Amino acid sequence: MPTDAREILPRSGTAFTLDKGQTLTVIDPRGEQVADLLAFARDDVREVISSGRTFDYANRIYLTTGDVLYSNRSRPLLTIVEDSVGRHDFLLTPCSKDTFRIIYGDADPHRGCFGNLAAVLAPHGVTEDMIPIAFNCFMNVPVDGATGTFTVEPPLSKAGDLIAFRAEDDLVIGLTACSALQSNNGSFKPIHWRID
Amino acid sequence: MPTDAREILPRSGTAFTLDKGQTLTVIDPRGEQVADLLAFARDDVREVISSGRTFDYANRIYLTTGDVLYSNRSRPLLTIVEDSVGRHDFLLTPCSKDTFRIIYGDADPHRGCFGNLAAVLAPHGVTEDMIPIAFNCFMNVPVDGATGTFTVEPPLSKAGDLIAFRAEDDLVIGLTACSALQSNNGSFKPIHWRID
Repeated sequence: MPTDAREILPRSGTAFTLDKGQTLTVIDPRGEQVADLLAFARDDVREVISSGRTFDYANRIYLTTGDVLYSNRSRPLLTIVEDSVGRHDFLLTPCSKDTFRIIYGDADPHRGCFGNLAAVLAPHGVTEDMIPIAFNCFMNVPVDGATGTFTVEPPLSKAGDLIAFRAEDDLVIGLTACSALQSNNGSFKPIHWRID
Repeated sequence: MPTDAREILPRSGTAFTLDKGQTLTVIDPRGEQVADLLAFARDDVREVISSGRTFDYANRIYLTTGDVLYSNRSRPLLTIVEDSVGRHDFLLTPCSKDTFRIIYGDADPHRGCFGNLAAVLAPHGVTEDMIPIAFNCFMNVPVDGATGTFTVEPPLSKAGDLIAFRAEDDLVIGLTACSALQSNNGSFKPIHWRID
């Protein structure tokens, strides 16, 4: 772990501010671990990254270095400036009690990335209904273009792989070490992050 | 036009309530015309259809008869009960002033489906920031699974084609005749709808 990096424990999350021009680096220290990322405009957290607006302007559902994450108000919030993996997901919502109940059949489900994000973002004025589709760093969701079916496969990230984002405005960030077994090839691992 | 159907004029939109158990049929009367659909829980319009939650549970980005549109709270809001086309989009946001400015380079852009939906949904308590990715009836967005790139192609719908939804709760519906040239093969046409 680099001396200036911080750790998110397995199945947990954190929130922090990121100033315009700063770079957030999200690191997968052990490999095959997803990190759900949300970014809100700090001045008005009703403005948040939007997969739909981002796809509209990128003409691509898989994003990498050079791509911009747009808000629901069509403003750039983050630009991907480095990416050693090249495969992330922006289709699926943060895992939740409902995810685990409906998909996994869990009787007493974990609160998941959704619950973790809701808890850490509440002090910033973000309510559950304001949590959209996250940018799921390292999540590997290949889509069959003919049928539209997709599967959740092990991340392509290896130990030390990273993705870095430049803030295009003053932001509130929510970030997790993902809590869904299938997304992380069957084990829960930490995530590291750093601001430069 | 069936006697009991209503018409949405080209490049406009409407909102109405739909009761649990009722069926909404969206008809493309001339062919190759997209209709953006939104559904909100009438008791609390902060609950709205979610592409991400829907994809989570469907494991498919192309939806058709039998598929359920889930809300951001993981509750079923609509079930597709009939579909004579089989290709719709749930990836992209309603076209807007920003869409037309950024993608088309329009100097004085139309307010688009986004502006139309915001106007007709405002009396129901829905603000602009509460408008998510719409279910875009008849919109044809093939995705290349290898690269993730997509294109907006002419709809596969022919005159009289339709898609029908059963309401799984009491809802507020927003519905448009889409305003983007590319989505509608270069011309703006009406949309018809009916409640049974």
